[in-house]
Amino acid sequence: MTVLTCPLCVASGTVVFQGEKFRAIRADEPGFPAFYRVIWTAHVVEFSDLGLADRHRCMAAVNAVECALRAVLQPTKINLAALGNVVPHLHWHVIARFEWDSHFPAPVWATAQRPVDGAAVTLLQAKLGEVDLTIQRALAALCQAD
Amino acid sequence: MTVLTCPLCVASGTVVFQGEKFRAIRADEPGFPAFYRVIWTAHVVEFSDLGLADRHRCMAAVNAVECALRAVLQPTKINLAALGNVVPHLHWHVIARFEWDSHFPAPVWATAQRPVDGAAVTLLQAKLGEVDLTIQRALAALCQAD
Repeated sequence: MTVLTCPLCVASGTVVFQGEKFRAIRADEPGFPAFYRVIWTAHVVEFSDLGLADRHRCMAAVNAVECALRAVLQPTKINLAALGNVVPHLHWHVIARFEWDSHFPAPVWATAQRPVDGAAVTLLQAKLGEVDLTIQRALAALCQAD
Repeated sequence: MTVLTCPLCVASGTVVFQGEKFRAIRADEPGFPAFYRVIWTAHVVEFSDLGLADRHRCMAAVNAVECALRAVLQPTKINLAALGNVVPHLHWHVIARFEWDSHFPAPVWATAQRPVDGAAVTLLQAKLGEVDLTIQRALAALCQAD
């Protein structure tokens, strides 16, 4: 089901991979270049609205994005979250966090701990092409094996 | 492996269910009575540090806690998150969110939107015994089937 008033049913961010069941986007969040989302295609609200096979597929995609971020960027930590209070359509935030980022160790939604480090952000942005490609390959392989 | 300096290897919160691979706790976070955590027993940092079978087990536990919260409390939204920036030991936050809560629709880590509604919190607290029991039964069944 597509809900035309739901922004995640329609479009958002830079699409990195488009599958049948889900897509991966780079969210282009200011100060957090390595902020990706796995967005489930069907308009479901909660993770537990999915059946077992789809929950496995969904988390395999989240895991693949996490692995790509770890392999290319060696972040201090990965943050995963499915919140959806504002847009209640199942989507997972997959965020590479670094000790130097503006909010670490607080969540990205909390109060900033320090100003954005423009130089570090620029260095990170230079690696996003490789991250995107690694995600594309991993998710394509996942969908092909499915 | 147990890391004695890691607070999640040792103890935290009110234990609702203790399995071999994971435990579920009620976090007793002020203003958010229905804030649970699924804590992986082994000291791993990231979700992708788990093998496939353990990722399935872990998310089955998270899903079971989510289902218990939905069944007993009918929350506005469920929030799931594995952050671990402060305590890098794999744990999932499973939080029942309500339109009346102090932060909704912002994440619980963001700035409060309004004061805590003491009466609503008290009403919610009265249902936590049933939530705990529902979680215990679901996770026991999950571990028995495993």
